[in-house]
Amino acid sequence: MSVTPSAPRLSPAPLRLGIAGLGTVGAGVVKLLRAQSALLAARAGRPFEIVTVSARDRTRDRGVSLENLRWVDEAVEMAHAPDIDVVVELIGGAEGPARRLVTEALKAGKSVVTANKALLALHGEELAALSETYGGTLLFEAAVAGGVPAVKLVREGLAGDALSRVGGILNGTCNYILTEMEQSGRDFGDVLKEAQNKGYAEADPTTDVDGWDTAHKLAILAGIAFTPLRFETLPVTGIRDITAADLKFARQLGYRVKLLGMASALPVSENAPTGGVAAWVGPCLVPETSRLAQVNGVFNAVVTEGPFSGPVAVSGRGAGEGPTASAVVGDLVELGRGSPMPVWGRAPAPAPVACAPAGDLVSAFYLRLLVEVRPGVMAEIGSALRDEGVSVHLVSQHDTPAAAQADLPPRAWITVITHPIACSHVERMARQIERLAAVLEAPLVLKIENLS
Amino acid sequence: MSVTPSAPRLSPAPLRLGIAGLGTVGAGVVKLLRAQSALLAARAGRPFEIVTVSARDRTRDRGVSLENLRWVDEAVEMAHAPDIDVVVELIGGAEGPARRLVTEALKAGKSVVTANKALLALHGEELAALSETYGGTLLFEAAVAGGVPAVKLVREGLAGDALSRVGGILNGTCNYILTEMEQSGRDFGDVLKEAQNKGYAEADPTTDVDGWDTAHKLAILAGIAFTPLRFETLPVTGIRDITAADLKFARQLGYRVKLLGMASALPVSENAPTGGVAAWVGPCLVPETSRLAQVNGVFNAVVTEGPFSGPVAVSGRGAGEGPTASAVVGDLVELGRGSPMPVWGRAPAPAPVACAPAGDLVSAFYLRLLVEVRPGVMAEIGSALRDEGVSVHLVSQHDTPAAAQADLPPRAWITVITHPIACSHVERMARQIERLAAVLEAPLVLKIENLS
Repeated sequence: MSVTPSAPRLSPAPLRLGIAGLGTVGAGVVKLLRAQSALLAARAGRPFEIVTVSARDRTRDRGVSLENLRWVDEAVEMAHAPDIDVVVELIGGAEGPARRLVTEALKAGKSVVTANKALLALHGEELAALSETYGGTLLFEAAVAGGVPAVKLVREGLAGDALSRVGGILNGTCNYILTEMEQSGRDFGDVLKEAQNKGYAEADPTTDVDGWDTAHKLAILAGIAFTPLRFETLPVTGIRDITAADLKFARQLGYRVKLLGMASALPVSENAPTGGVAAWVGPCLVPETSRLAQVNGVFNAVVTEGPFSGPVAVSGRGAGEGPTASAVVGDLVELGRGSPMPVWGRAPAPAPVACAPAGDLVSAFYLRLLVEVRPGVMAEIGSALRDEGVSVHLVSQHDTPAAAQADLPPRAWITVITHPIACSHVERMARQIERLAAVLEAPLVLKIENLS
Repeated sequence: MSVTPSAPRLSPAPLRLGIAGLGTVGAGVVKLLRAQSALLAARAGRPFEIVTVSARDRTRDRGVSLENLRWVDEAVEMAHAPDIDVVVELIGGAEGPARRLVTEALKAGKSVVTANKALLALHGEELAALSETYGGTLLFEAAVAGGVPAVKLVREGLAGDALSRVGGILNGTCNYILTEMEQSGRDFGDVLKEAQNKGYAEADPTTDVDGWDTAHKLAILAGIAFTPLRFETLPVTGIRDITAADLKFARQLGYRVKLLGMASALPVSENAPTGGVAAWVGPCLVPETSRLAQVNGVFNAVVTEGPFSGPVAVSGRGAGEGPTASAVVGDLVELGRGSPMPVWGRAPAPAPVACAPAGDLVSAFYLRLLVEVRPGVMAEIGSALRDEGVSVHLVSQHDTPAAAQADLPPRAWITVITHPIACSHVERMARQIERLAAVLEAPLVLKIENLS
């Protein structure tokens, strides 16, 4: 018995596309499909034909001709158009027209290619079920890390291994801000404003800087590497509390600060007979020699670890017209070849699981405190650490610029690197420290992620 | 019309495997298939069943039970066994039993998974034709960069872009030797011996240290990124001439020395109306800030550049039981799903092309000369450079340890960094310099590869 069909691989029928959303990425997809039509047809085994588009503004110059294309007013019309094989959803947003279009298209048995990370993270279960029931394929390479083919790397490239860890630097805006803060010594608000002026950050930066975009992407990676997550159980912290001083202290200690999303498969144990998934999004310290420490500016990186494959890291541009268009078109090539890939890399899709309780995660931690300089302060802090069983690896004191002001009592920053301990203990200890009279603001607590 | 079949995706029929070659990798494949059988079946949509194996030695302890498996004396018998769907070829070597087995299996319409880089690089054209004629799929993820899914990254992940460049650090033995030489200051022969003792290098190291293994892998990457190459036209240089002094000088100049294989798609021009491919294997200098400079020891890395996707880099373990087994099993999962991937990512396979003439490649270069220290030497060297139109960016003189010996005339190393110039000019200039009386040995010429 042969495992591959002996029928000819190439079919001359074009794959007919409806493209919903003609922003930067949508225009990039049209450009790429036109610029490389012969090569892409050879790779996909059939040509691509854009038949229908939709966008709010029909008149804007997108740097590409849209003549002879059918326009529809409501994107959802594409779901029912008999001459569309694949719907390319580039509208964005977890609800509204994007969700309606993808849902209806899958119900009509069409295949869908999307760059919509929020949609996948929040409604992946429902969409996977629609894909299985009606037979349409749902691909979303562009939803994670832009031009970096991280989804295919994990779902197909590493399909031979049972990965133990996946994650990385998944948001270029945050990585740009942290890199700039470190290199210029400027504070968060300043650099955010600059990023907004340069177009690297949105006018409303919440999705990026509060970690939600990273969380959406991490949920997708965990879904294909392990099992889908119940998104609402994922602990998410952004980068607003990180100061230029933290970046300097981290550097002095041999670390860099990066916003990471990381997920780990928990080993099967007596307490967890089916294992489970631990996952979190937050700023943390990574060793300066680690692969993630070298990823700067708007670049993204995804790292994996597996018992057979070992550590793998992939990096590249996480956003932008070209990289995202490349990812979308890569999915179209896959559809052209006729690979019916299940949403989470297996069918039937597993039901989403809750993340393991964040408090149980064991890690070393970095603490930064602002204190009044007077005898006995260190002893008080030491007691708080001891009471929660936190063992200290390193304590350093750093002058504050404010200490130069003569009318204030002398103050200093204290940084602490702990030995590994459960997150819940560190959080209780931080609350205890905050209550000390000499401690002038809530301590900052960052995980230390000892990646290679 | 729907692009995906509405028939159920899961078939209960197992994918029946014949594994030829039970060395480290073969044993690893058996272990992985057993350790993760349920997960792999869910991903592939069907279980795997090992039915037949072959190896020279039936009695050796491989750390895994081989009971209840059929053994065959000649691997090629698997090609004709009616109960084998997929032949896994892990024998190795471009000729002999490996080639015979793969050829016969493809002729019998079976699919083949192989880790055999030499076979693909030298006989890819013939094998692609057999795959097309008889309908069997030929997959070879493990042939390039071990556990790093570089083949799928380029062929599937980046299928949406027309890449302009692909290559990287493709041989862990050479990278280990260069890293050790740099860190310890020891010379090539010394470190090679140590690598052999540690099992990182073969007793006959030719394939690795003379660049052939890198060349095989580069030919495969170029074949899937651009078009297959006529292997015999690929210029290949190994690392035997690199000294610890070169690594030190490179470091002082802000570079690292790496053995790279790189291929570029040449732009269409008046002289080259169909473009073409420039490719080479050789040790070269890369900026210390580049992604490849950070890849040390036995790690491999593949980098790509494309007009849409931008720069992408992936790194991980390039060899060993686990990583290579992970790559082989990833291919089996792909076959289980029924993806009939053409050998070079498109069908029909393009005919192999000759590499562009190496002499035309333009690059900056590093030269290292051993000279007698006396007045006029620099003027003589300067004339030789000028005569070939080589413009100098930087010249430095370095003391040699030999200068300490009182009975020798004083000697020194001179290093030159040139501005970009065609390779042919630099080679002519090197020959002219070698003839100078004050120059004591043939100059070393290394390309400088200004990757980001």
